[in-house]
Amino acid sequence: MAKVKVAINGYGVIGKRVAEAVQKQDDMEVVGVVKTSPNYIAQTAVEKGFKVYVPDSNGLERFKSAGVPCEGLSEDLFKDCDVILDCTPGKVGATYKELYTRLGKKAIYQGGEKPEVAEASFTAQVNYDKSVGKQFVRVVSCNTTGLARTLNAINNAYGIEDTRAILIRRGPDPDDIKTGPVNAIVPETKIPSHQGPDLQTVLDVPIETIAIKVPTTLMHMHVVTVKLKNPPKDVSEVVEMFNKAPRIVLINGKDGFKSTAHIMDWARDHSEARGRDDLYEIRVWGDAMSLRGNELTFMQAIHNESDVVPETVDAIRAVMELCDAKTSIEKTDKALSIA
Amino acid sequence: MAKVKVAINGYGVIGKRVAEAVQKQDDMEVVGVVKTSPNYIAQTAVEKGFKVYVPDSNGLERFKSAGVPCEGLSEDLFKDCDVILDCTPGKVGATYKELYTRLGKKAIYQGGEKPEVAEASFTAQVNYDKSVGKQFVRVVSCNTTGLARTLNAINNAYGIEDTRAILIRRGPDPDDIKTGPVNAIVPETKIPSHQGPDLQTVLDVPIETIAIKVPTTLMHMHVVTVKLKNPPKDVSEVVEMFNKAPRIVLINGKDGFKSTAHIMDWARDHSEARGRDDLYEIRVWGDAMSLRGNELTFMQAIHNESDVVPETVDAIRAVMELCDAKTSIEKTDKALSIA
Amino acid sequence: MAKVKVAINGYGVIGKRVAEAVQKQDDMEVVGVVKTSPNYIAQTAVEKGFKVYVPDSNGLERFKSAGVPCEGLSEDLFKDCDVILDCTPGKVGATYKELYTRLGKKAIYQGGEKPEVAEASFTAQVNYDKSVGKQFVRVVSCNTTGLARTLNAINNAYGIEDTRAILIRRGPDPDDIKTGPVNAIVPETKIPSHQGPDLQTVLDVPIETIAIKVPTTLMHMHVVTVKLKNPPKDVSEVVEMFNKAPRIVLINGKDGFKSTAHIMDWARDHSEARGRDDLYEIRVWGDAMSLRGNELTFMQAIHNESDVVPETVDAIRAVMELCDAKTSIEKTDKALSIA
Amino acid sequence: MAKVKVAINGYGVIGKRVAEAVQKQDDMEVVGVVKTSPNYIAQTAVEKGFKVYVPDSNGLERFKSAGVPCEGLSEDLFKDCDVILDCTPGKVGATYKELYTRLGKKAIYQGGEKPEVAEASFTAQVNYDKSVGKQFVRVVSCNTTGLARTLNAINNAYGIEDTRAILIRRGPDPDDIKTGPVNAIVPETKIPSHQGPDLQTVLDVPIETIAIKVPTTLMHMHVVTVKLKNPPKDVSEVVEMFNKAPRIVLINGKDGFKSTAHIMDWARDHSEARGRDDLYEIRVWGDAMSLRGNELTFMQAIHNESDVVPETVDAIRAVMELCDAKTSIEKTDKALSIA
Repeated sequence: MAKVKVAINGYGVIGKRVAEAVQKQDDMEVVGVVKTSPNYIAQTAVEKGFKVYVPDSNGLERFKSAGVPCEGLSEDLFKDCDVILDCTPGKVGATYKELYTRLGKKAIYQGGEKPEVAEASFTAQVNYDKSVGKQFVRVVSCNTTGLARTLNAINNAYGIEDTRAILIRRGPDPDDIKTGPVNAIVPETKIPSHQGPDLQTVLDVPIETIAIKVPTTLMHMHVVTVKLKNPPKDVSEVVEMFNKAPRIVLINGKDGFKSTAHIMDWARDHSEARGRDDLYEIRVWGDAMSLRGNELTFMQAIHNESDVVPETVDAIRAVMELCDAKTSIEKTDKALSIA
Repeated sequence: MAKVKVAINGYGVIGKRVAEAVQKQDDMEVVGVVKTSPNYIAQTAVEKGFKVYVPDSNGLERFKSAGVPCEGLSEDLFKDCDVILDCTPGKVGATYKELYTRLGKKAIYQGGEKPEVAEASFTAQVNYDKSVGKQFVRVVSCNTTGLARTLNAINNAYGIEDTRAILIRRGPDPDDIKTGPVNAIVPETKIPSHQGPDLQTVLDVPIETIAIKVPTTLMHMHVVTVKLKNPPKDVSEVVEMFNKAPRIVLINGKDGFKSTAHIMDWARDHSEARGRDDLYEIRVWGDAMSLRGNELTFMQAIHNESDVVPETVDAIRAVMELCDAKTSIEKTDKALSIA
Repeated sequence: MAKVKVAINGYGVIGKRVAEAVQKQDDMEVVGVVKTSPNYIAQTAVEKGFKVYVPDSNGLERFKSAGVPCEGLSEDLFKDCDVILDCTPGKVGATYKELYTRLGKKAIYQGGEKPEVAEASFTAQVNYDKSVGKQFVRVVSCNTTGLARTLNAINNAYGIEDTRAILIRRGPDPDDIKTGPVNAIVPETKIPSHQGPDLQTVLDVPIETIAIKVPTTLMHMHVVTVKLKNPPKDVSEVVEMFNKAPRIVLINGKDGFKSTAHIMDWARDHSEARGRDDLYEIRVWGDAMSLRGNELTFMQAIHNESDVVPETVDAIRAVMELCDAKTSIEKTDKALSIA
Repeated sequence: MAKVKVAINGYGVIGKRVAEAVQKQDDMEVVGVVKTSPNYIAQTAVEKGFKVYVPDSNGLERFKSAGVPCEGLSEDLFKDCDVILDCTPGKVGATYKELYTRLGKKAIYQGGEKPEVAEASFTAQVNYDKSVGKQFVRVVSCNTTGLARTLNAINNAYGIEDTRAILIRRGPDPDDIKTGPVNAIVPETKIPSHQGPDLQTVLDVPIETIAIKVPTTLMHMHVVTVKLKNPPKDVSEVVEMFNKAPRIVLINGKDGFKSTAHIMDWARDHSEARGRDDLYEIRVWGDAMSLRGNELTFMQAIHNESDVVPETVDAIRAVMELCDAKTSIEKTDKALSIA
């Protein structure tokens, strides 16, 4: 069977990661990536064997003068593909919808776009089926994906009556030197923050989220309190439940996982398996949980650069109708060394 | 009436602030401060008119060779005072208890010490009376004081059934260059963190706290969820209630208070009134509250360097039996320009 | 004699500081300040007794709906004043030049503007006379002012053959939560950075500067190496020389000044004198200097929020021809508690 | 020929990296690593196939109760090896010298130890021969290694008359959450800082260094000014010269290398080749150099976690007399994918 031809519009933090992830699958391949600037990231794309395209003729010129090989215009790339992964910066993706529509192409958006841009929002293990065969699908953001995975598992096991999540967000991504904060705690003064309603585009549970930005680049951290309909006996049951849930990994403070820095240190020590210090799975502290009455509180850390990568691969299979959810998740996980 | 003679053991972040605050009262005075190192802080103490003592003869030597005036040994200072404010680093205060006892002096500890060091833990507006006439009293820590003030007000108004507080803590104090974290979110993996039980030494309400350290020096921030016995109609009632409560100030995101940095910017703009950019009152966001059923969630910012300063002044009046709680709080607030 | 009427266009980090400094002088007064947003800073301006104006009718509306008193439009304020202090954000000031010209008003710009905006660039102790009676003058930036003060003193004492300055810059100001970097060292890859040529607009000495941004909000730090024509015998002579130079303060590592954080800690402890934790003087480490042959290396810390404040006051006297440089500097220093 | 048996005492930031690097060589192998705590790093060592030893029986107990396999006591490991890589924390290594001596083993120290601990200090391309056959050798620190590589290349090409280096140091390593500074620039107030004299233990050139710590975890950055005996015509010659020098890589700001964060972003994108985001080579900005008269100024970034790794491998070959410098460097570079 011919591999699905994937074009990637935007080769930044997410784009470069999904490009590599797609290449590791046996049923799809990257036919090209779109990059605006002929910088070291573009040069790396070329080194890694990706064909690089630019959005306009101005870009052609800039790549030429920088000596970075460029295959042509993005529109030509899009014409030749089966599905476009839109990894442009937040809100930019929406401006491309007209082009994707005109070309009659399927497109998968990221969580920086509003839900309305797509026919369905997506988290593989939660609602894969709603995206099957659709033209426009949106993989929810890194924070929402994290909440969707753990809350879906909890909801299936114990039933969720209500949820409160405090999201302590990294400020900028590691390669973003322009964005702060440098020395402040920055709450969103709008309650609920957008992640609560965003979660409800994929998982139907009551939730109120509060988001607070802090001066770090590494990971988001969530403190989640869930009121359960049928609470377990104790937290050890919860640990066991999470252990069986897909794309969730338990960690313990007593093993030295004292911070997001330690989790990333572990990731760097395990780069060999994935070719990168990415953490596709949500990290949940197993020895820092609390169950009081029917209220479970747990803490989870989200690798914002990479947790949506396996979801995006699954979304391709959903829109292209390649297989069912279970099969896709298994294929993705195997290809990406997800336990 | 003779003023109460106050000795201050430890002239660091807290010590230097309570020294200045005591000097502003009409019923007490600082007879001396104890400082270990003849650095710029000691020099400033001298400039401000405080008599500086050292713990041992080694200190005498070091002050002499640095050319910083020193009045003698701390034990002599302690002998001549009515009450000692122990502002030594956490856990060090306990080692002084024997000396204070031997000299027959009253001492007021700070929250870095364990509750057991004192006969009573103290927050002026909550439990002043329990410390009246006692020899050893402990003012609870900055975080606990913040919780005590707002939760006491809420408890009085609506009755507290249960509390969950997420404490997002500044890493080091602004003048501490040795302590991190620099780029990590650091949860305490022990739940509950110690602030919950600590609060219960002054206020009898159910609570579970979770503490998380982040890379900032400015303030702590709390996200507090309280289950109320008799909830108000809406959050505007809560705003009104907090407006009347002592040592709590309402702020709004729409006025530009978007972060702890903005609160401190305001404090710096108001240094003239207090001679320092200190914020004795807890800041609560009035336009970022949520009331869902009987669950109230609010956010507060704590100026960890200074919120315990007025409490410490009140504690002096309590142990010295100078007046009742209401009178003391009013005197302190007037002297310290607390609204 | 009537006081000079000063209008302040822009009431941010610099504007609010120069407003307070002008009010402390006996020969000038603030007739109004211009603020775009009715936030806590505008409210503080009103509290402090300043009349607040807005740039346009849209602003009138916003102040009204926020309940913050507003006196009218900035153009009306400008018409009624003798001199405008332009404290708008960098590059914005230039767009006002046409208005200032049309109104026939003198204006003093800050260092965020290009030199070409003004007839002369200004550092009081270096080249006051060049600005006397001029319509448009520019006070050079915080970094350049720092270099101008110490290098002018050195040049007068020993003659400068060449200069190399490494400027380790704070990222954002303390109240700026949007700007990074959070976790990176960011060199300007253009050598020389603009501060070298900028210095030469006020002081004619050879210099090459290199600027590097780091994740801190507090102060800039410079490492300066100067080749001297007539070098002193040893660094103690340099210390003595700096001790006599205006607006420069010597500090020592052995007194606890181990970092920019300690300098600001000292400033906070001395807020009472100035009503604010501002450091108008450049801090030079006296015990961390090196003299090798004719090469002097020293380190200085710059309080970027405030070192240009006294310069701006002096620039008013220069353009208004109120007095000579020496008299102005003495008046300013006395009014602002500069030693 | 039998492989050299290498024991690694200390499996932290450096230890774990040299362990993996040794395994990639064809003439040496790791026979065991010593780890104090049975945390995730110890668990990773086991996963990676290393035999883990502990310093004492207390450690045996702790590993057992944590369920982490442990082979025995470090002394037994040392007895069975040919050479010990001492990667214990700074100053701890010296306390092991007696044991190493008693066992008659060769040991290679890291730069955290004082030069006196060893018979020779080492940088492969500079002074390999001095360590041949020695019992105790010290690989100089990350900063000194960086200086040694570029200054040696410059000295060979143009002759160095004098050097001034400003070292802008990262605060803590990425996995160190306890150390600051969080919001300060921290100069060493001792001039010269220790790196200058340290460099002279491997390379005989005049130098004065100044070290300044800043709040970042990623890399050190140096601004180096060198007075040349026979200066080149222009900086393009310097670029060419560095391009040919071993373990130095040129980068350009125009390619997007605007900060240490971008360099590490590139490293993460190239983890596949080395199994880790390590940068063994010094990064020198090719388009941010200055040549004024005979003074060359350039900027370099140092990956403090890894630049000494290839040096340590070479040091093994030197003390074991396996081959000459050129052969060793070539073997190491090939095995570690160093261009």
